[in-house]
Amino acid sequence: MKLDTESDRTGFQERPVLRHRGAEASRTTDRVAEELPVALVFNGISHAVMMVTPRDLQPFALGFALTEGLVAHGSDVFDIEVHDHASSFEVEITIASQEFVQLKQQRRSMAGRSGCGVCGIESLELLDLKPARIDAAPLHDAMTLQPAIARAAAELGQHQELMQATGGVHAAAWCDASGAVLRVCEDVGRHNALDKLIGHLALERVDMRRGFVFMSSRASYELVRKAARMNIPMLATISAPSTLAIDIAAEAGIKLVSFCRKDGFVEYT
Amino acid sequence: MKLDTESDRTGFQERPVLRHRGAEASRTTDRVAEELPVALVFNGISHAVMMVTPRDLQPFALGFALTEGLVAHGSDVFDIEVHDHASSFEVEITIASQEFVQLKQQRRSMAGRSGCGVCGIESLELLDLKPARIDAAPLHDAMTLQPAIARAAAELGQHQELMQATGGVHAAAWCDASGAVLRVCEDVGRHNALDKLIGHLALERVDMRRGFVFMSSRASYELVRKAARMNIPMLATISAPSTLAIDIAAEAGIKLVSFCRKDGFVEYT
Repeated sequence: MKLDTESDRTGFQERPVLRHRGAEASRTTDRVAEELPVALVFNGISHAVMMVTPRDLQPFALGFALTEGLVAHGSDVFDIEVHDHASSFEVEITIASQEFVQLKQQRRSMAGRSGCGVCGIESLELLDLKPARIDAAPLHDAMTLQPAIARAAAELGQHQELMQATGGVHAAAWCDASGAVLRVCEDVGRHNALDKLIGHLALERVDMRRGFVFMSSRASYELVRKAARMNIPMLATISAPSTLAIDIAAEAGIKLVSFCRKDGFVEYT
Repeated sequence: MKLDTESDRTGFQERPVLRHRGAEASRTTDRVAEELPVALVFNGISHAVMMVTPRDLQPFALGFALTEGLVAHGSDVFDIEVHDHASSFEVEITIASQEFVQLKQQRRSMAGRSGCGVCGIESLELLDLKPARIDAAPLHDAMTLQPAIARAAAELGQHQELMQATGGVHAAAWCDASGAVLRVCEDVGRHNALDKLIGHLALERVDMRRGFVFMSSRASYELVRKAARMNIPMLATISAPSTLAIDIAAEAGIKLVSFCRKDGFVEYT
């Protein structure tokens, strides 16, 4: 699939604000991270609306389709068109007709499951919290964890452009086994940042079994579930994990490390 | 409505971890915030599954019903029963039959909208981003903002028990006009923390037009939308807002202040 030139925005807007320091106040402008509804339309049928920072919307749509299991391979996505309606976006995704038949069946059986993987579902029976084990050699055998995490933690900040501008977005970084940060995507939603990153990696045909994802956020279950679908062997986060994130990582065979800093980290699986 | 004695948990679990500091590693245990699926069942019909930290589940269910507009008043909720299934929870909510008729109609017209207010919906037409203006006098006329925010920012930390234990949850605090922190609820999801808080306030018949909500998180659109439904005149957050949060706050007539610290803050509306 070839990418069109996207009508991408900067991802932030300048807004007038009143900034208070102690008892003094001054009028100024502030850069604020954009959050806009993005409708994902598969073969003409609207599937989900996500609140997204409007950058990297083509990779985002591809990543979402992959990590939510709507398509098995990036090559099943034929075309992604982004339509900018100013206060919302529509992304038209054309997928292989065989995948679309499966998607329609899945929608029938899963009754509106969408988004981060749970908010749309209506009952506990529809929850899918048993990921298959990943098909990847454990990354932590092939490298020393400590220097890799220290390096990723040291490098990430330099790549967080939108965070520096706005102070209000999460980052998902792709790192090689040495911890070198190779690509970073940002979004108001951590699951969106991960989907954007995975979409880029899929477009570039990166072997996701041979590196790790480093996130500026906490580790929640949906990040682990998305990583598991892509056979990513390790998820590292700056902030804390939840119990369900640990349980799902253990089930999938993913190494989960959190509280990652230059001088330390905690292994949970 | 009377609350049953809840089978509430602590909200965290102890997990074995390998803690790395520099090149040294030690086996120890860590307290990890619980994240579990909670099914919300209204009059016998499953409505939504949310990922929640299992504390304050009765107030959570009441707050969710109110802030998502499923019932108009707390008195329309007759009973809330919490069933602990170990790895998930089911909360049975009994509401007035008239409200339930409306809920069923709403479900038909909104096709699975649930959760934080957007993840479940399928198309842009179903988005509701135009809240009614709140029915409350502007709180910032009746108080001096700066000392109130400084006080709330100074007091919040002492009330974040689960955050101190786990490092991985958000807090929603109810403050009076002087910034005194009167109640705090915590959850892995910021919107859940707010729903728990609002449920408690509704149970205690607190007039939500006469104080403000202070949150440890960023300000995203769904927090503003939930606050608007309850006529809460001000939302203050420690971290950054998004553009949509600002727009919806302006539309609803809510004062939005972010980057709230002891020595300063930023007014966005």
